[in-house]
Amino acid sequence: MADPRFFSAAGPHLLGRLAELAGATLAPGGDAAAVFDDVASLDAAGPTHVSFIDNRRYVDNFMRSRAGACIAPPNLAEKAPHGMALLLSESPYRAYALVARAFYPKPVREPGIHAAAIVDPGAVLGEGVVIGDDTTVGVGASLSHCLIGSRVLVHAGARIGQRGFGFAMDPESYVDVPQLGRVILHDDAEIGANSTIDRGSGPDTVIGPGCKIDNLVQIGHNVQLGRGCVIVAQAGISGSTKLEDHVVIAAQGGLTGHLSIGKGAQIAAQSGVMRDVMAGTAVCGSPAVPIKEFFRQTATLARLSKSKGRV
Amino acid sequence: MADPRFFSAAGPHLLGRLAELAGATLAPGGDAAAVFDDVASLDAAGPTHVSFIDNRRYVDNFMRSRAGACIAPPNLAEKAPHGMALLLSESPYRAYALVARAFYPKPVREPGIHAAAIVDPGAVLGEGVVIGDDTTVGVGASLSHCLIGSRVLVHAGARIGQRGFGFAMDPESYVDVPQLGRVILHDDAEIGANSTIDRGSGPDTVIGPGCKIDNLVQIGHNVQLGRGCVIVAQAGISGSTKLEDHVVIAAQGGLTGHLSIGKGAQIAAQSGVMRDVMAGTAVCGSPAVPIKEFFRQTATLARLSKSKGRV
Amino acid sequence: MADPRFFSAAGPHLLGRLAELAGATLAPGGDAAAVFDDVASLDAAGPTHVSFIDNRRYVDNFMRSRAGACIAPPNLAEKAPHGMALLLSESPYRAYALVARAFYPKPVREPGIHAAAIVDPGAVLGEGVVIGDDTTVGVGASLSHCLIGSRVLVHAGARIGQRGFGFAMDPESYVDVPQLGRVILHDDAEIGANSTIDRGSGPDTVIGPGCKIDNLVQIGHNVQLGRGCVIVAQAGISGSTKLEDHVVIAAQGGLTGHLSIGKGAQIAAQSGVMRDVMAGTAVCGSPAVPIKEFFRQTATLARLSKSKGRV
Repeated sequence: MADPRFFSAAGPHLLGRLAELAGATLAPGGDAAAVFDDVASLDAAGPTHVSFIDNRRYVDNFMRSRAGACIAPPNLAEKAPHGMALLLSESPYRAYALVARAFYPKPVREPGIHAAAIVDPGAVLGEGVVIGDDTTVGVGASLSHCLIGSRVLVHAGARIGQRGFGFAMDPESYVDVPQLGRVILHDDAEIGANSTIDRGSGPDTVIGPGCKIDNLVQIGHNVQLGRGCVIVAQAGISGSTKLEDHVVIAAQGGLTGHLSIGKGAQIAAQSGVMRDVMAGTAVCGSPAVPIKEFFRQTATLARLSKSKGRV
Repeated sequence: MADPRFFSAAGPHLLGRLAELAGATLAPGGDAAAVFDDVASLDAAGPTHVSFIDNRRYVDNFMRSRAGACIAPPNLAEKAPHGMALLLSESPYRAYALVARAFYPKPVREPGIHAAAIVDPGAVLGEGVVIGDDTTVGVGASLSHCLIGSRVLVHAGARIGQRGFGFAMDPESYVDVPQLGRVILHDDAEIGANSTIDRGSGPDTVIGPGCKIDNLVQIGHNVQLGRGCVIVAQAGISGSTKLEDHVVIAAQGGLTGHLSIGKGAQIAAQSGVMRDVMAGTAVCGSPAVPIKEFFRQTATLARLSKSKGRV
Repeated sequence: MADPRFFSAAGPHLLGRLAELAGATLAPGGDAAAVFDDVASLDAAGPTHVSFIDNRRYVDNFMRSRAGACIAPPNLAEKAPHGMALLLSESPYRAYALVARAFYPKPVREPGIHAAAIVDPGAVLGEGVVIGDDTTVGVGASLSHCLIGSRVLVHAGARIGQRGFGFAMDPESYVDVPQLGRVILHDDAEIGANSTIDRGSGPDTVIGPGCKIDNLVQIGHNVQLGRGCVIVAQAGISGSTKLEDHVVIAAQGGLTGHLSIGKGAQIAAQSGVMRDVMAGTAVCGSPAVPIKEFFRQTATLARLSKSKGRV
């Protein structure tokens, strides 16, 4: 059970009701009227707990689990231990999210974020900043020159709206360029702890609706993110690069400036992207190339290296 | 026009005066007495706005722009649309900086930074810290064990002067080494949001005059930066490495400790530098090699990979 | 001498006593009754100062040093300048740590950390957080959903316990997964400035006893670190990855999720680890391979590139 010092639980719930909430199918043999009182990991779960598996790495844990019920993809059903009820779903993690919310329905209090309120007293807002309904700003975050939508979550220590890295390089001294744009954070965006988003230099820096930005991410001035982009921890996007909807940048990836990244493109972890990326393609490496090409290059080099360059 | 909630504008100005301020040449056909009231991007500009172009990626936007005047390099002049006045400059971005300052002469207020004051009340200074004239320290920044010059700008959340990562590794337990140096930030340096600069271990950590450090940069203990170095976002420099004047480290670059980087050297994005770099050279890759060699290696591997290793 | 505005010194000490404290051997010719009053770097030291050398890069500085005494490994003894007393140690940096502590015995005050107290008034603790004896939390740090042991040092701006990057991706909208675990920081751990540690999603995120985490490091939810792991600046560990004891991740290294890293494994700087790593092995590269293989590949590519792919 989640530590009651930090979390407050609801329930119990009937398994049939949980299946319904999760959009999952109760596999034959499962008892819709069985009572469950919590979620737990495969290893920690007991007979009255619901667990989940969505990664083949954990099949052994699944086979040994004592969970009374488990959310699983249909193709793992045959691995379930005897007596475990299965909630079958093609999106087991999503289904788990919905079940876990049934047991922990109240918003979890983040450090310094008031559940129903707007801005932590330890956060700092510059003049003119506008913040929408149900948006929460974590402790120690600072915001300026920005307009923020509804249901946005800004985590602790995020820095939004400071001047970007805009100066004219000059042999004698650098001339700062006034940074005259703003940051626009659309509805339902999430900004991770200690991430930094610079305001635009004239145009705005724009984070689209529902974007998920992890911790320690850097977003340069004039960057534009479409809807539902996912930027994983420690990635960085240089100035004026534009992402269409649902682009994913994995951890520590980097994009140079002035690029166009097409809808649904995927940038692998630690990639360095120096060119435009077409919609729907996946790239990897530094400099980044199509991911199949990357793995072919990696294999080629490994082979040549083993043969001491003889081919 | 920049959002008046955040920025206060001056002007209008005569085009001839703007050319003078920018050190640019008004091209034939331009009217020095024409009146302009703002700066704007190529796409957003109208007939009374001054725009600029300094990157060939934006030639199409330039050709379609409705800006009344535009700062441009001479070699793009022929692409200008009919009726647009041109301010010709070999340093168009620098010229734009100077024009934009004419329209927005007042210091832009950073989050929590008081225009004419020294230190935000939300910043924290340790005992003994010395700060020069016109230096501004952003909200939530913390400084200790440091001496800071004039006209320095420390952005929100920067951490300056904490103990470096100095301990003797030992099979049994790690022994912390007292960190007895300071951080010296010389005049006109800028430190980005959430960047971290550790104090020296005995010698000082030194940031030279006019250095520009972007967001989320890590500077280890005893690092010394000469004059006007530029360290782009998420780059890191390990302990005791020394940079001469005007070194540039692009985003996410990393340098191991105890290196010497010569004057004007350029470290490409995501490079991993494990050896000294001579003055004036550019390196790329991890481990970093001269940039021409890097691109030759990249091309070689791509070719071998396509030929399945047959050469 | 360390700047008395920031540091308070003790001493003087007899050389024989310092050798004893350091576990070092006074080399023949050294006077155990000689009086020393400070530590200093090779370049800055004078006749009453103790210095140290543990890196061959500094042999020239060693040979020119005017230090009255120097801690050195036995194999460098013959390089010592005439008249310098030597404290011989196979662990010169560790020995130096112990000598420096004799001269600066008082805890150095970190920004906003009270020497004998627990938590800076500028730090923010969420409800239910437990903190052990002699633990110090720096200014601007924020902690929630965590249990912290004794003698832990949390530097300024660290963010511990916020919700991890846990959501089910979905074509329509992302569904946040309640994050129901905690962060457990065991005794003697150190967390660097502006680093971020997400709480577990159900299991806990665990930082083992004596772990050293540098600045700007990201630790994802459910990550588990054994005893004495060292994570250097700007490295990142994705969710659910487990490190056994004494693993070292050098700067800017990255690990994907759900990995097992064996005892004493070493991950080189900027490496990207996508597979489990066996105990005691060193890996390098992105994707990471055994370090010997990495350098063989690097050499192979350099050679092929020079021969234009002819072998």
